[in-house]
Amino acid sequence: MTKITNDLFLRACKGKSVERTPIWIMRQAGRYLPEYRAVRKKSNFITMCKTPELASEVTIQPVDLIGVDAAIIFSDILVIPEAMGMKLEMIESKGPKLYDPIRKASDIDKLKTIDAVKDLKYVLDAVSMTKRELNGRVPLIGFAGSPWTLMTYMVEGGGSKSFSEIKKFIYNQPEAAHKLLDKIADAVAEYLSAKIEAGANALQIFDTWGGLLSPADFEEFSLSYIEKIISQIKRKDEPVIVFAKGVHYKLNKLAECGADVIGLDWTMDIGKVRSKIGKKVALQGNLDPTVLYGSEEKIRTEAVNVLKSFGKHKGHIFNLGHGILPDVSPAKAKFLVDVIKEESRKFH
Amino acid sequence: MTKITNDLFLRACKGKSVERTPIWIMRQAGRYLPEYRAVRKKSNFITMCKTPELASEVTIQPVDLIGVDAAIIFSDILVIPEAMGMKLEMIESKGPKLYDPIRKASDIDKLKTIDAVKDLKYVLDAVSMTKRELNGRVPLIGFAGSPWTLMTYMVEGGGSKSFSEIKKFIYNQPEAAHKLLDKIADAVAEYLSAKIEAGANALQIFDTWGGLLSPADFEEFSLSYIEKIISQIKRKDEPVIVFAKGVHYKLNKLAECGADVIGLDWTMDIGKVRSKIGKKVALQGNLDPTVLYGSEEKIRTEAVNVLKSFGKHKGHIFNLGHGILPDVSPAKAKFLVDVIKEESRKFH
Repeated sequence: MTKITNDLFLRACKGKSVERTPIWIMRQAGRYLPEYRAVRKKSNFITMCKTPELASEVTIQPVDLIGVDAAIIFSDILVIPEAMGMKLEMIESKGPKLYDPIRKASDIDKLKTIDAVKDLKYVLDAVSMTKRELNGRVPLIGFAGSPWTLMTYMVEGGGSKSFSEIKKFIYNQPEAAHKLLDKIADAVAEYLSAKIEAGANALQIFDTWGGLLSPADFEEFSLSYIEKIISQIKRKDEPVIVFAKGVHYKLNKLAECGADVIGLDWTMDIGKVRSKIGKKVALQGNLDPTVLYGSEEKIRTEAVNVLKSFGKHKGHIFNLGHGILPDVSPAKAKFLVDVIKEESRKFH
Repeated sequence: MTKITNDLFLRACKGKSVERTPIWIMRQAGRYLPEYRAVRKKSNFITMCKTPELASEVTIQPVDLIGVDAAIIFSDILVIPEAMGMKLEMIESKGPKLYDPIRKASDIDKLKTIDAVKDLKYVLDAVSMTKRELNGRVPLIGFAGSPWTLMTYMVEGGGSKSFSEIKKFIYNQPEAAHKLLDKIADAVAEYLSAKIEAGANALQIFDTWGGLLSPADFEEFSLSYIEKIISQIKRKDEPVIVFAKGVHYKLNKLAECGADVIGLDWTMDIGKVRSKIGKKVALQGNLDPTVLYGSEEKIRTEAVNVLKSFGKHKGHIFNLGHGILPDVSPAKAKFLVDVIKEESRKFH
């Protein structure tokens, strides 16, 4: 195993001492980079996910170009529903479409139990290839969607504005919903274990749609399955990060789900959250992604505000509070990374 | 002046004793009602807003059909930008469009200072007509968008997914942004004062997009202008409600903005919010609107959970945590109203 040269990210995830705060950016391998768009132009999104050389190339781009302290494998959360047997299509400027959405118990029986090594070999190959290419420069993060978030896509048949189908499903067929969540949780745990086996140094679970739920429903339909996954993942010391967007109302419970790190969106005051949930977990976040539309002065001020709010404690990984926006200038993203590398030394 | 027969809503807004918890529903005059769709079929949305007879008819429908304890005048928050000189169009199944969006300081100078009695006569006529028709059965609520929410539409030119234009505007041209917010705040205060003059018994300010902002930005770009409006409105005893969706992080500050009532979205635990901000204001909310997709049993359980969470205190107005969804059955909405009328007696 290659030793990781820059292991700041891994140390911060475990609440250990660091010389400065590590930084990575959600969606850092993405459309804001001209180098990414050049690859994307010759291919399409799903082909990029399924071609280890291309996935690996765009995964490493932000490490070289922006100087982040961790890479995250280029992929999509919907590879799981696809591996379970649903037909997936990415429709240009409209988003993902899953054909024949799940609407009743019998639809669930048709879904396959996945064998990650076989059904998602292309992701695992991308992970191993990227690890070789990175050659220990920075750690590599693997990721998956939470069962609740994946189920939302599988029932809606894609994205949604009103989320009426998924809400009808959980309120009118709660048993079927739990059966499906259980099946997805098993698939995600198997998949994330295989990513660790393939060389991932850390994992992030995205609960993009957790914030749609009322506090009680979040515990029942999302959090319990995140806990299940974390308890099932086969890992040694690899940290698990949970990013549950909009879930401001269950931070104490989230901090007890077994994750090493909780990711915060930009609507929370990271210092207040730290005081509230204490040292149980490390925190990741949480600069408003739109601040990167501002001037360098504005970016520096707001980035330092996040560092100050967290204060001189251990266990902070700097990130945006949501994915980087496609029309942000790469120079601004690099400026942010440089600011954090420089300014955060004062806090350690 | 006609005396209000059912004044439960007004008493609850002021934290006074009531025999049972009053209920009204955001977007209660809306598409889920076949009687509304029948009016809408013969007209279009903007014409309905501008024709007092039609606006009045759909405003009163939910009082007759669902049995709510307050009516809210049928209108749209974008009548203000239109009165200020922007061209407004409602595009079927796409949403509102404001032509020639504001992008620089000189665009702001072109906006008119409104004279509500002249420029928004049709809304005021709808208010007076509805008051006559209601004949004191229940109070009538007037409303407006917050300056931040209105500015978002005026700069984006309509709805948005990424909100990149408005964020670029506030970060790169903060002076222009404050100038525009100030101008909108004056218009909204003038408009709401005129609504009171025309007979509105209460006012609600909708800050639909407040939750897009980080906590510090919310104070600077939204809350301060809500405060300004409330201090400027000419009113006697008419309560003001502020509903700031997603603003879970500034509830204490919100409670000090001068409003009598704070509306909560469904992601907050209303009992916890009450303990946190005390008796400074009454609270409105906050059942998850998608619960109305569930069975009667589910609706009863969740509605009673909200009542229990608030507990045996004064100052609760029951509502959904966001607008009622267009594909909800009217029978379910009526069932909810009946459940609250019956079950809430135990809490008073």
